Amino acid sequence: MTPLPTEYDFDPADWPAATALGQRMLADMMNYLEGVGDEVSWQQIPDAVKERMRAPLPQTGQPLGDIYAEFIRDVVPYNKKNIHPAFYAWVQGTGTVTGLLADMLASALNPNVTIGEHMPMYVDAQAVDWCKELMGFPASASGMLVSGGSMANITALTVARNSQLGPDFREEGFAVDMPRTTVYCSTETHSCVQKAVEILGIGNRYLRRVPVNDRYEMDHEALIQAIEEDIAAGHRPICVVATAGTVNTGAIDPMEEIFNVCQRFGLWFHVDGAYGALCRLDPTYRERLRYMERADSIAFDLHKWMYLPYEVGCVLIRDRDLHRRSFALTPSYLQSSHRGLAGGPDPLNNYGFELSRNFKALKVWMSLKENGVEGYARLIAQNNRQAEYVSRLAAATDCLEVVAPVSMSIVCLRYIRPGMTEEESNALNRELLLRLHERGIASPSATVLRGMYCIRICIVNHKTKNRDLLRLVEALAGIGNELYGSV
Amino acid sequence: MTPLPTEYDFDPADWPAATALGQRMLADMMNYLEGVGDEVSWQQIPDAVKERMRAPLPQTGQPLGDIYAEFIRDVVPYNKKNIHPAFYAWVQGTGTVTGLLADMLASALNPNVTIGEHMPMYVDAQAVDWCKELMGFPASASGMLVSGGSMANITALTVARNSQLGPDFREEGFAVDMPRTTVYCSTETHSCVQKAVEILGIGNRYLRRVPVNDRYEMDHEALIQAIEEDIAAGHRPICVVATAGTVNTGAIDPMEEIFNVCQRFGLWFHVDGAYGALCRLDPTYRERLRYMERADSIAFDLHKWMYLPYEVGCVLIRDRDLHRRSFALTPSYLQSSHRGLAGGPDPLNNYGFELSRNFKALKVWMSLKENGVEGYARLIAQNNRQAEYVSRLAAATDCLEVVAPVSMSIVCLRYIRPGMTEEESNALNRELLLRLHERGIASPSATVLRGMYCIRICIVNHKTKNRDLLRLVEALAGIGNELYGSV
Ligand SMILES: Cc1ncc(COP(=O)(O)O)c(C=O)c1O
Ligand SMILES: Cc1ncc(COP(=O)(O)O)c(C=O)c1O
Repeated sequence: MTPLPTEYDFDPADWPAATALGQRMLADMMNYLEGVGDEVSWQQIPDAVKERMRAPLPQTGQPLGDIYAEFIRDVVPYNKKNIHPAFYAWVQGTGTVTGLLADMLASALNPNVTIGEHMPMYVDAQAVDWCKELMGFPASASGMLVSGGSMANITALTVARNSQLGPDFREEGFAVDMPRTTVYCSTETHSCVQKAVEILGIGNRYLRRVPVNDRYEMDHEALIQAIEEDIAAGHRPICVVATAGTVNTGAIDPMEEIFNVCQRFGLWFHVDGAYGALCRLDPTYRERLRYMERADSIAFDLHKWMYLPYEVGCVLIRDRDLHRRSFALTPSYLQSSHRGLAGGPDPLNNYGFELSRNFKALKVWMSLKENGVEGYARLIAQNNRQAEYVSRLAAATDCLEVVAPVSMSIVCLRYIRPGMTEEESNALNRELLLRLHERGIASPSATVLRGMYCIRICIVNHKTKNRDLLRLVEALAGIGNELYGSV
Repeated sequence: MTPLPTEYDFDPADWPAATALGQRMLADMMNYLEGVGDEVSWQQIPDAVKERMRAPLPQTGQPLGDIYAEFIRDVVPYNKKNIHPAFYAWVQGTGTVTGLLADMLASALNPNVTIGEHMPMYVDAQAVDWCKELMGFPASASGMLVSGGSMANITALTVARNSQLGPDFREEGFAVDMPRTTVYCSTETHSCVQKAVEILGIGNRYLRRVPVNDRYEMDHEALIQAIEEDIAAGHRPICVVATAGTVNTGAIDPMEEIFNVCQRFGLWFHVDGAYGALCRLDPTYRERLRYMERADSIAFDLHKWMYLPYEVGCVLIRDRDLHRRSFALTPSYLQSSHRGLAGGPDPLNNYGFELSRNFKALKVWMSLKENGVEGYARLIAQNNRQAEYVSRLAAATDCLEVVAPVSMSIVCLRYIRPGMTEEESNALNRELLLRLHERGIASPSATVLRGMYCIRICIVNHKTKNRDLLRLVEALAGIGNELYGSV
């Protein structure tokens, strides 16, 4: 049998040189991370640098060292810097050194963590078990590590829909003679829930937005009314989504009341805790978050308030059997055996959208072991206290107004002076935020609450220190004063 | 203003020590990867090791060095080893050193690559543009890097459904007075397509499995018939899924014919090329894969035949506008500005399921630059030639039978001797595979083709060499002979 003429591979031609380059990269990254707080928080990208990302597909290769030099020159300085102590935009975690080392190890082993008898499957199961403990869910529950809050929510909502619509739903889909299914959430619910009901074929119109009270929490009386109206109209309510920490203001929907409503009407009780579920580790919030652990499902993110590098979120489903029945499929090429490589635990594609999965569990496992629950509890509480601190600092000025109750680690505020109209304030605050970014002082984001454009500070950052927050508030007042009268 | 009493963070207490540990990890991983081919291809996990993954949630922390020692002791030896040259199971790529270094760099920078003005957004766009070029898609198309083939397929099918059902679909969902929507694929289509139609609310029953010919390729006459029957029954055909490289046998559905059917009936033409789309880089397959670039959408994996570490797949949609209209949503907290951090390109959550996204683009960008199209073309062609080589080696034995035409890099074969019944052969081959795994010789997987249990060798492995394949075939024959007569 003539063998093939040539044999190639993608292994390094020179292993020691590759190791040396890798070690240099690692040392560079450690230096970068150690010093990032001394850099500006954001920097405009020169056009010439962006232009270099419009190259045609390379036909021939080039040495990795040269590519790395390009990365250092063109990418690193213009990083987003949610790793910077003065980053408070959206809900974006910081990342950690342990997380990056774990990602590197996971990528080296590179197991496909879905099927088979191998240790990464057990590390994944261990990480999920710990997530259940973190959330007060029973050991009998099931769960999955997914790419983030959006996937966690849609996974849970798929199980909710399939479980409520019965065992034929996967086979039959939405039948023409079915009543319309309705889902409930508050007006403050994250847009990924809308995305999910649209993808699931329910339709955005049937996602009922229940009004909130003046603390931006779902009004459970209005919830009951909405459900009753839908039932009267012949619709079929299936699920309520309560939020533990809304994206705008960190508000917590009334868990106990919503739990009771779900019990009363036989609805699936889902909690979107993408941002705030881990806040139950802060004793200040423990009571407010009670009943969350009674949910049928919960979605929460580990790349937010567990500060892990992207991507990792988690979905937990109380009833493992309902979870499995929503996704399980065993084609011949994925059949398990009782021994060998294809033995092992129940394949994980039976519990979600994905087949191939990476070893994201490793960073969860290593980080929980390194910091313990204690470590997270301490930092999450610190972030909450920091938000209160910002709010106090703002209140002590004569120009910054906190525009929503401070809940969890979010403060929404704006620059305003007596006599300014809403429009003037909106325009001023818009420009204020841009200057704050452009001067590289700090990176909050913005939102609009009841027509007020406001600057939104969300602290899911383990690097933020008091001095950063003091500097932030001083800059907000200072730039605001600079703009006052001129815009 | 009294500041907070204590200030914690998750940065290393001792940066030089953390760097040294990280460099040791990196060197260990490089040694591991260099030598992995000399190890067994798979190893049974002792119960005691598994038992250690049933620990309660840690309350207090422990040093990272100790955790790493546990990882080295408990995880590394029992890795899945799809990184081993003798791994041929399922469709699982190898991973590369450059991929792991890129993952480490991505994790260090840790940008959320969804929104904002920062370079990782442009690297992501560059990587997607290169994916379009790889697939012969126009520059005007849109695309997304996602976690894998399953997500790429469901993303495309969501766009197909929403586009075909019209602009009201997101709002209205499946209305009670709509005809049933039907989707077409072959009986050999990957199960993730079934999963997608179930999740999308279409129902598995309305996913029509069109028969295949004796080369496991979709019979396009039967496709036309199925569509016509559905139209006659008042249903609404929306989409055909053609596979470029089926998971069982690497079969290629007739692209040109399916394209024409879709044109004729106004259907969305989607290609699942999770495994095989990149095979268009091998000139041997170029012609067979023509018309794939005319698809409305294509899904393909980079963690398979681009050998990148998990997770990374890609979906391309010919019509950017239809893509965007299926997912775009702009809540107030995600509004873009024209300057500053919140400036920048169109947010990527407008093109898919996810909001937070990691910097998986970096490994795509670095690897395409390092190897060029040339490098991939060479290795993909090598894998195809290797499959042909295995098939010739098997044919030269008196006991191994190749049970399906060899297409792309998949060979399905079985041990069989004259006079053996189908049942005897099935039982023998089952045991044969287990022994092959358990002796650590090689890791193929299994499938069932027309009732025949067979051993399935899928080579998307850049480390595999001819000697590995020779050893595989010798072991298949040898263990088969050992078992022959005894089971
Ligand atoms: C309350 C809430 N739900 C869901 C999400 C979506 O999570 P992800 O970005 O991880 O998909 C977010 C993100 O900010 C959120 O704050
Ligand atoms: C043809 C085909 N489609 C889809 C998939 C699913 O891809 P992933 O495992 O990346 O989700 C596979 C995986 O093997 C496949 O072979």
